[in-house]
Amino acid sequence: MRVLGIDPGYGRCGFGVIQRSDRRWSCVTHGVITTDAGMDFEMRLLELRRDLVEIFDLYEPRRMVIEALFFAKSTTTALKVAEARGVILMTAAERGVEVVEVKPNEVKLALTGYGRAEKRQMQEMVKTVFDLKEVPKPDDAADALAVAYAGAERRRY
Amino acid sequence: MRVLGIDPGYGRCGFGVIQRSDRRWSCVTHGVITTDAGMDFEMRLLELRRDLVEIFDLYEPRRMVIEALFFAKSTTTALKVAEARGVILMTAAERGVEVVEVKPNEVKLALTGYGRAEKRQMQEMVKTVFDLKEVPKPDDAADALAVAYAGAERRRY
Repeated sequence: MRVLGIDPGYGRCGFGVIQRSDRRWSCVTHGVITTDAGMDFEMRLLELRRDLVEIFDLYEPRRMVIEALFFAKSTTTALKVAEARGVILMTAAERGVEVVEVKPNEVKLALTGYGRAEKRQMQEMVKTVFDLKEVPKPDDAADALAVAYAGAERRRY
Repeated sequence: MRVLGIDPGYGRCGFGVIQRSDRRWSCVTHGVITTDAGMDFEMRLLELRRDLVEIFDLYEPRRMVIEALFFAKSTTTALKVAEARGVILMTAAERGVEVVEVKPNEVKLALTGYGRAEKRQMQEMVKTVFDLKEVPKPDDAADALAVAYAGAERRRY
């Protein structure tokens, strides 16, 4: 069973695919979807959508894990991330991929056993749990792998 | 030339199609896309997407006008509306439909000549400009027609 983790964004959207084998989760691939800042916003959403469809086609995940959104203040950026997130959620639904949302502290807890772990600790744990030689780069990709791991075995509700 | 106006939402999304003929804009159709509150959120977004695609197919608008989002506080509802809005914007881009965003006060100004008009005044003006027998119901549909009208002749930028 493959699980896709997503760190949502409209300019940079991290993704990581993990797979269970031999009782542990290994990393299949990770990366970042980027969209051109010079394009109209709706065209950037379309670019994100097209790259996502390719990822679904190529890796055929059964589940998608995505971080739950929370913003104290509703900045323009926050709303744009939500708009990108809508495209991501709809695309998963269209593909029949189960969606699991995880909260930031759940991700930290799953990886480090501590809900307030720091970013660097998290990244080191991503390297460790997936037995990677280095911390995945860029950060968006490492975050997506962490999210995938946190939601991979969770019951949906 | 047909113009589609959208009052975005995930539970209720108003739409209105207008068309220019004889130097004035007339209403082709208006209505509301509703999604089932009992469904998972991503399935609601997919339902919205599918209904939108049908509207694009049926009415072939050249332009879509949508209200710009602004929320002082980022409630869960605001983020969900933004998520629905992302699906709407992406679908327009995919169809090659030009997107125009209008601010709430622009809509009021276009219809009543006054940027702070009240809701009831707006609805009466929608009835008048499109020469309708009654104020379109529900409100979401009337709002979508107002938005279409406000952005129909505007230059894109």
